[in-house]
Order: sequence, then structure tokens, then C-alpha cells
Amino acid sequence: MTDRPKTPILDRVSLPSDLKTLTDAQLRQLADELRAETISAVSVTGGHLGAGLGVVELTVALHAVFDTPRDKLIWDVGHQCYPHKILTGRRDRIRTLRMGGGLAGFTKRAESPYDPFGAGHSSTSISAALGFAMARELGGDPGDAIAVIGDGAMSAGMAYEALNNAGHEGKRLFVVLNDNEMSIAPPVGAMSSYLTRLYAGGPFQELKAVAKGAVGMLPDALQEGARRAKEMLKGMAVGGTLFEELGFSYIGPVDGHDMEQLLPLLRTVRARADGPVLIHVVTKKGKGYAPAEAAADKGHATAKFDVITGVQAKAKSNAPSYTAVFAQALIDQAGRDDRILGVTAAMPDGTGLKQFAQRFPRRCFDVGIAEQHAVTFAAGLAAGGMKPFVAIYSTFLQRGYDQIVHDVAVQNLPVRFAVDRAGLVGQDGPTHSGAYDTAFLANLPGFVVMAAADEAELVHMVATAAAHDSGPIAFRFPRGEGTGVEMPERGQVLPIGKGRMVAEGKGVAILSFGTRLSEVMTAREALMARGITPTVADARFAKPLDRDLILALARDHEALITIEEGAVGGFGSHVAHLLAEEGAFDKGLRFRSMVLPDAFVDHDAPRAMYDSSCLNAQHIEDKVLSVMGVQSLAARRTDRA
Amino acid sequence: MTDRPKTPILDRVSLPSDLKTLTDAQLRQLADELRAETISAVSVTGGHLGAGLGVVELTVALHAVFDTPRDKLIWDVGHQCYPHKILTGRRDRIRTLRMGGGLAGFTKRAESPYDPFGAGHSSTSISAALGFAMARELGGDPGDAIAVIGDGAMSAGMAYEALNNAGHEGKRLFVVLNDNEMSIAPPVGAMSSYLTRLYAGGPFQELKAVAKGAVGMLPDALQEGARRAKEMLKGMAVGGTLFEELGFSYIGPVDGHDMEQLLPLLRTVRARADGPVLIHVVTKKGKGYAPAEAAADKGHATAKFDVITGVQAKAKSNAPSYTAVFAQALIDQAGRDDRILGVTAAMPDGTGLKQFAQRFPRRCFDVGIAEQHAVTFAAGLAAGGMKPFVAIYSTFLQRGYDQIVHDVAVQNLPVRFAVDRAGLVGQDGPTHSGAYDTAFLANLPGFVVMAAADEAELVHMVATAAAHDSGPIAFRFPRGEGTGVEMPERGQVLPIGKGRMVAEGKGVAILSFGTRLSEVMTAREALMARGITPTVADARFAKPLDRDLILALARDHEALITIEEGAVGGFGSHVAHLLAEEGAFDKGLRFRSMVLPDAFVDHDAPRAMYDSSCLNAQHIEDKVLSVMGVQSLAARRTDRA
Repeated sequence: MTDRPKTPILDRVSLPSDLKTLTDAQLRQLADELRAETISAVSVTGGHLGAGLGVVELTVALHAVFDTPRDKLIWDVGHQCYPHKILTGRRDRIRTLRMGGGLAGFTKRAESPYDPFGAGHSSTSISAALGFAMARELGGDPGDAIAVIGDGAMSAGMAYEALNNAGHEGKRLFVVLNDNEMSIAPPVGAMSSYLTRLYAGGPFQELKAVAKGAVGMLPDALQEGARRAKEMLKGMAVGGTLFEELGFSYIGPVDGHDMEQLLPLLRTVRARADGPVLIHVVTKKGKGYAPAEAAADKGHATAKFDVITGVQAKAKSNAPSYTAVFAQALIDQAGRDDRILGVTAAMPDGTGLKQFAQRFPRRCFDVGIAEQHAVTFAAGLAAGGMKPFVAIYSTFLQRGYDQIVHDVAVQNLPVRFAVDRAGLVGQDGPTHSGAYDTAFLANLPGFVVMAAADEAELVHMVATAAAHDSGPIAFRFPRGEGTGVEMPERGQVLPIGKGRMVAEGKGVAILSFGTRLSEVMTAREALMARGITPTVADARFAKPLDRDLILALARDHEALITIEEGAVGGFGSHVAHLLAEEGAFDKGLRFRSMVLPDAFVDHDAPRAMYDSSCLNAQHIEDKVLSVMGVQSLAARRTDRA
Repeated sequence: MTDRPKTPILDRVSLPSDLKTLTDAQLRQLADELRAETISAVSVTGGHLGAGLGVVELTVALHAVFDTPRDKLIWDVGHQCYPHKILTGRRDRIRTLRMGGGLAGFTKRAESPYDPFGAGHSSTSISAALGFAMARELGGDPGDAIAVIGDGAMSAGMAYEALNNAGHEGKRLFVVLNDNEMSIAPPVGAMSSYLTRLYAGGPFQELKAVAKGAVGMLPDALQEGARRAKEMLKGMAVGGTLFEELGFSYIGPVDGHDMEQLLPLLRTVRARADGPVLIHVVTKKGKGYAPAEAAADKGHATAKFDVITGVQAKAKSNAPSYTAVFAQALIDQAGRDDRILGVTAAMPDGTGLKQFAQRFPRRCFDVGIAEQHAVTFAAGLAAGGMKPFVAIYSTFLQRGYDQIVHDVAVQNLPVRFAVDRAGLVGQDGPTHSGAYDTAFLANLPGFVVMAAADEAELVHMVATAAAHDSGPIAFRFPRGEGTGVEMPERGQVLPIGKGRMVAEGKGVAILSFGTRLSEVMTAREALMARGITPTVADARFAKPLDRDLILALARDHEALITIEEGAVGGFGSHVAHLLAEEGAFDKGLRFRSMVLPDAFVDHDAPRAMYDSSCLNAQHIEDKVLSVMGVQSLAARRTDRA
């Protein structure tokens, strides 16, 4: 889109070891060039921009001071890893970020030895780093372990569990707290306020002098050198007690964009640390790129854009996104029932609850990156007489699984789960795949589990969930745009456990759960041209199953095929169980179940991912032909070859 | 076993409202009587003793000061709720604790309005209480919300997530931190050390005077009364900064066995609190019963016992427990491979890792009640070149599900999971049921999932897991004793994905996954007497499936029945999927899958639970008869009736 930036020093760096030959002044310049290169690359690929820009100096400083990949540098979440990838031998592929066959948008072990522990979900880095540290202590891989974790990620219990354990173990370990007052949304919770108070008192200008002074004064030969150095550096801190109480040495806050602070500080702690150290670094998300700094989300995720103007290439939109439809439907319901509440775990934008919160500010709760708490908090709300809608992506709902079982299902509390990003999600790849929710929800007694076949169905399912007050209920829907169907003026409450007939046919029936329905209908068209007219039904419910519908389909057809955007163990498995118990197989029913493959599907365009997963119209057509004993065109072609 | 204690005041209490008529002196006596009654009851039933004895005074004081059930009193975990049950209208059934049809061993919403939120797993109470509090603020159920949570439970991230959110919301809420320096095992982690430091400085004798003084001085009519009262009470604190930083008012520590401290303190905070308050109460687990106080686990869980001597009724044991077999097998393997490590989440006793830790103290990690961290920490250990065995009960492994997917499976790291308490667990009831692990593990790409049919098989599976270095592997085994089979001298590495033929037969094949195998063999005996000789195979693996074995069974028999101790979506579902894809159903194979029922099975003896779940020998026999078209005796009896 624009000319590549001039990057004379960066051009001399192919691996982090090359940084060892650079002066501090050159490292400063390298950071500037790395920032320009990051902006240039993301302008071409789209992706996560703001987080990377915020850690450009930190990335250079960490690689300059530590000895990667021997030292394990673990980026929490991984949104911020693009500059790291540029510095670690992947610059030549940086303009393939998040594209099929290209670099992953997160760190990934399979991609580089400089990615010792991959991510995608937040708040895992301290646990992983402690694992590396303790392995080292017991004769495993040598080297230091450094976790870089954002302040938003610190709201997750997992990070606290890891701090608590690391403080107890007391072994050498580095946690860099990258405090930018932003995760994806502005962070919430008391910890965030605490961090703000930590640096509210002391402006960086003064701290800088202290830091330089402290380092200059370090008495190398002193007996108690390590202890004294820590004491002096601690003097910089305005606070930090909370981390000290958990057994960490606290150092900071330091300006994460000032190499004159970062480099000596990191060199000192590397030389001196004899236990767990928390380094509090303050950065700005989107730093150094005006359009990102000015954006509400600080340039968190972006489409391709023009570097000069910051204007993003807008994708053509034919239909509203499922998320937007969900948000509007929830607002509609909430306008009629003031017991309806929204709960999000730090994703008000992604889940659409931001719109809900604008309309009903007191009735929306952003609990931070805290899915465990989110679910049980909602269970408490429900027990207190309210109607909470917990809006969490399928992949992140995994974090609240035990709470779903123990606090919601066992107690049969009417918590509503809006399971967004169900199925394959595209560029975020396998860590964000929503493959398992149907399996892990549908075998919980008393749960109602729905999937929307299109955006109009989603509106009905929101209404159904709002009305269902006798137990837990979940509805899943995918990432992206709807199919463009006509929208109902108002959601209708669906009868629980009843599917719907979509198209009558004979011989073979296809029972769809979720948005593969449109692919099924495409396949049906193609099959009709070949003289096969499948019956098509939309199950709507994986639990309770529509027994009458399913047994009728089994009775009236030679073959029955289920299809869903989920792994084995979900909808198709429940249908198979019913058919088995009812003896439908005894009569030779040809049953097939189309599910996500037994493999983690790499990032790509969603359509391509479903193609490699054999869940598109062509695969449905082939499946029908094979089950009906008709050789498909594709198979015949393969035979001839 | 012994005479009932004399309890004149307790005899006058049928509900907490009766406490309002008692003087403080009578409340003190009531506590003594309640302690005696608790000891007497548990001597008859067995169960969790130490935790309840530690909170006798707290239970009386909370019910005396607060207005339950309008005020919601939420006991974390619920181990400590027996005295609470005695005071809340359940004294007449207290000697049915944990028995079939009797009172549950935990709080349970369905049992009493005085149990506003049930438990079983730890660290959920603050989230639930915040839910009640926010529901109240928005027009839901009125009343205060009080969470009582132990110091051990504070190591869980979920508790931190809830504190973080509650501090941010700033609404009136009470968290009573019951600090007894014990969960089930002595607690670990930096938080625990911190709490100890909090009260290490100030002996209770002095604090008591301060507390009484402070309350006496409370200026009722003062404008800033609430603020001042809080300030004064805060003066009692030796520390508490950490909680203050998270937005809570910290009050304490107070002696939780001294009603003269507890009653005025609770009255004051109830009258004055205008935001979240943490009340730090120090108690002794097992308090007031010498045999419990003297026990290493402070009388955590006990069999029936003699009240005078404390001697427990020993159960007859025919075979070693599965847990003990696992522990010994792991020690054997670890003696030959120093990369083998153990990881437990605060359950060294329950998982058998205590024995492992005695032999290999540096190689065993108790990370606290922190399953999320435990799993990712183990993933870090594995990435660092070690062989971690994560020993977690099936039900608690649900807490680490996302970490299993995201950190272990996506990265294909060789973490070993010893999944204890798989299947139904008996007296702990539905909250502890290990019903879902096969379903939630076996659909993860690259995972190996095994179940031991008996204790000898378990030894082989530990050896197999130790040898399997190419990806994650799990083996599940039940609570309780083994079957008494001959034990191998040393574990053999099993071929991955291969089952074993147990008994040849014809017509019908039964494919068992796990310890139902012995029931299957009993059923086979009975069936042979009726002229049906089933083939029996032990699948050993739910993933990868033994395709050759399963397809051969399908080919060579008219009917195939799977059986497992798990919910639908697990082993049987994977077998059904394979059979469908291979066209086995097309030929009329009579397939059935015996799984746990779609219901939460109430606490009872394990055998009774499996009976109500239709998974015992008689049910297997009936299933075979029905699938083979032979009417069972039971069915014929029913027909005649």
C-alpha cells in the first residue's frame, strides 16, 4: 500500500544474536525501525497492531539483554508478538501474517525455537515460565524464563495462581508486567486501579534519574551485591507491596518506551536476580502511530490500512454480523424485562455487550479476563432472581467449564450462555477454534443447547433463552456475517427440543445443527440435478433432542446424515446415542455424522478452513453420494488418476 | 456408638431465628453444645469433621447476627457445613449425613432455603455472593451476602477473580476468611505465608481488648460513623494491605473461637459496612476434639469413630486402593527416570502424591487449589524437557479444561494426566462425579485417553504414560479398592490404541472401557446359563480407538454393546462415530452404548449409585437380552405386574 520504510539497522539483524553487536544508541534506532516495519507489515496483512507497537522497545531490549532462544521469552496472549517475529528470523514472512500457510498471529512452538510456548488465550505465561524455570532447576532445559504479561491479563485468576506458586517456590524467574491500561477493552477490576495508583505518584522523568543513578552505583564486588541492588531498585517503586507480599521482588514502574531506562534495568536484574522478580513496565498501546493511539481500542485489531492516513480497507458487508444481531436482540428483550443482565469477561466489543451496556449501563458487568468468576457470578445473579446472559466466545468458555458444571448445571440455575465464535474462526487459528462447546455442554443434565442456523434463528434463540427460566440454556453462533435472510421484527420463543423441517425429500435425510445449513441447501441443489432429493431438517437443539423428528427421519429414509460445526462427542453423538437406544441401527439405517476433523485446523480464511475440514457443500454432496452408493464425480476423478 | 450429649440450649433451637432470643452467654454455651452434637453425629455417620469443628463459633455468631435465610450465607466448599445444618432445621436428619436418601455432605439448594448456593468444589463462594449482592442492587432478592472461605481456597484464581471484581464494584458484601492454615493438606503458596505474617505479629489477647474497646466507642450518631468505625476496627489489623489494595476493607485478624470477639465484630460490620469487607478470622481445624486436633489432617474426613477414644471403625480391605496402586507405580517409574515429576493441586493425600513426595521431595509440586495453573505449569515443565504427571480428580480436572486444550493439546506437549475418582464417587455425590473426562479429553487431537479395567491394568498404564513422549496422555481410574487381581511385578508399556480380547463368544460382543469390566464378566456368567455367550473385550483406549478390534467385533457379531463409567459423548460416542463412518450400521449391526444417565446421581454407596444408573451386571444382562430379542426375567416380571 505504501513504500517500505528505510530500515538500515534492522536490515543487519537476522537473529537476536545480532543485537549483541549493537550499541545502545543503535538499539534505540533499531526500535524505531522495528516500529516502522511493524506498521508497514500490518498495513498489508491486517491484524493486531496496537499491542505490538506498545512493546517495540521492550522487544528489542529483552532480546538485546537476554540470550534467546536459550532463555525462554514467553509473550502472554501473543497479540504483541509481531515485532518479536520480525527480530527472530521471520521478517521475510511477516507480510503473510494470519494468512493461509503464512505466519500465525500468535507465538507458536511449531513455527520457531524463539517461541518456546505458544499462546492465544491470555494469562498463561507465568505458569509456563515457572514450568520452564522449575524444569531448569531439576536438570531440564537451561536458561532463564521470562513472561511478558499485560495488565489486563492480570485480572485472570490463572495469573494469580501462578504468582502465588512462583512466590512460594522462590526460584529465579522474570515476570515483565506490561502495563498499558488496556487489554482489548480498558481493563476493569481492583487490580487495575491498584496498578494505576502504583505509578500515579511518580512521573517517569524523576524515576529515570533514579534508575540511572541506581544502576551506576551498583557495587559489583560487594558481598551483598544482589540484595543491595534489589533494595536500591526497589527504591524506585511508588508501591508494589502486593507483589512483594506474594513473594516477588518488585521493580518499577519504568517507562517502557525509554531504552535508557529499559536496558540498564534489564541488565541489572538479569545479573542480580536470585528469585522471582516482577518488572513493572508502563507502555502505551499503539505507541508511535497516531491513528492507533487515537483509536478507542488503541489499534487492537485492524484490517489492512493506508499507513499515511490510517484509513482501513472496509470489507463489503452484505448482512449484519451474528454478534451485532445478538446484541440487538438482547437489547430488545432487555427493554421488556428488567431482570435481563449481561456479563462479559473483558470482551464488551467482541461480544456486542458494549451496545447493551450503552443502553443499560447498570445491567452490564465486565468482570475482567475471569471466565471462572463470570460463570459463577452469573449463577449467583440467577439464584438472586435475575436473568443473566453470559456472552463468552466458545473457546474462552472452556475456562469456565467446571463452573458451568458445578455451579450452574448441578444447581439447575437459569443462566443463559451466548456462545459466540462457535466453530472455526479464521485468522486466529486453532487456539481460538470453537470446536468443543456442544460436546461439553450437551451432556450436562438439564442443559438446553441450541445452535442458530442463521441470524434470524439467532433472534428467536435469544428470545427463547430469555423466556426459559427453569434451567440453564446455551445458544451458539459463528463469527462473521449472517446469511442475509429476512429478519423477524421480534424474536419468537421456540418450543424447547423441537427442530424444524426445512425441505422434504426422500432416500436420504440431512439433519443440520447450526450454520452449515446453507451449505447443506447448496449441496441439495446440486444433488437434485443428479436425481437425489435429500430431506433437510434443522435440529435447532442438541439438547433436548427432537426425538420425534429424528426417529421419523430415521424411519422414513434409508440414510441419515448429521452435520455440525463441532468435534465428535457433540450433536451427532447424541443423535447416534438416541438412534442406538431406539434400535434404529438394527434395521440397517445408514448413519453418518459430519463433524470437525480430529486435527487442529491452521489459521486461514474460514471458508478454506471448512474446506480442509470437509464440511462445505461439496463434501456434503460427496457424503450423500457415497452413503447412497453413488460414486461422486470427485471420487471418479481420483480413481482415473 | 456413645450416648448423645446433653444439649439443653440447642434443644430449644429449631431455626436460626431462635438465636435472636438468646443472650451472648447462651450463644457461647450453644456453641459448646453444637460442637458436641457435631462430634456425636459424625461419630455415627463418618464424614468431614475437622472443618465443621473449626467453625462452630463462627456458625453460631453468623446466624445470631445476620438474618438468614434472607441474608445469604454461603459456605465455600461446604465441608464445614454440618454445624450450619444442625442449626438450620436439619438436626433431625444430621445422622443421615452422606447416606443414600440422607442429608448431603455439602450445602445444597434443593435441601434447604438456608443453603442459598451449594458447593462441593472450592473457591466459588465469593463469586456467588457477589452475584447475590449485585442482584440485590438491581431489584432481585434482598438481603446481605456473606461468603465464608478458607485460606486454602484463597489459592484458587477464581477467588482472586471474584475479589478483584467485588473490589471494583464496591458494593456491600461480606467475605469471612476462615484462616485455619489448613485446607485438606497444609496450604501452600505465597498467599498462605502472607496470611500467616498478618497475624504473626499480634497475639489475640491484645487484639481482643482493642476489639471490645473499639466497639464500645462506636459513636452511633456521628455523621461519619460508618467511616470512623471502619477506621477504628482497621486499627486492629497487623496488615491486610493486600486486600485493601484490591478494594476491600480489611478487618482482623480475630480469634474465631472467641464469641466475645466474634459477636461484637460481626454486629458492627453488619451495622456499618457500605462496601466489600473482608473479615479475617483465625480458627483451628478440629477445634475442641482432641483426636481431630492431633491428626495430621486435623480430622478432615473420618470414618465412623468412637467419641471417647477417637478410634475409627476400619473398613475391611481386600485389595489396595487404585490411588495407592497409582502412587506406587509412579514411584517405581520415577526411580528409573529422573525426569518424571508429580504435580498436585492441593491434594497430595487424595491423589497419592504424598508418597511420591516423600520419596522424591524435589520432584513433586503442590501448587495449591489451582488447577488452571497446575496444567499449564506442567505444560511448561514438559516443554522444558521433563515428564510431569498431573494427578487430579476427574471432577477437579474440569477446572483446567481450557489449559488442557490450549496449552497441552494444541501444542501436543507430553503432559501425563492421572485422572483419579473417574466415574461415580459415592458419598460426595454429584458435585464430585467424574462423569465427563472421557468426553472432554477424547475429542482433543493428539490426546491418548486410557481407562484401567483393574489395578493391574493401572500399573501398565502408568508405565505406558511414562514411556509416551510424543504427546499428551491421560489414564482414568475410579475411587476405591481394586478388584484384587494379581499384581504385575513391573508395569508393561501397552501398545498405543490397542485393546485386548478378554473372553471369546458369539452373537453379541461387549466392549468395555474401564472398571465396569468385572460387572460385564459377572453378566456374562449369568448369560451363559441362559445359552448366550458374549464376546468380551477391554478397549483400554478411548483414543486412539482400536479400529481393527472394533471393526472385527462389529463384523463377527450381530450386536455390539459398549459400556463405560462416563456420560454420553465419550468412549461409546467415539465407537459409534467409527462404526458409522465405516458403514458398520448399514449392515444392521445392533449397537448399544451404556453410559451414565442424563441426570446428576445423588450421593449414596457407589454400588447403589451404579445401580440407579443402570450400569451393574444385572443391567448389562438385561441389555444383552433385549438387544438379542430375548425378554429378560425382569421385563417379564414387569409385564405380568
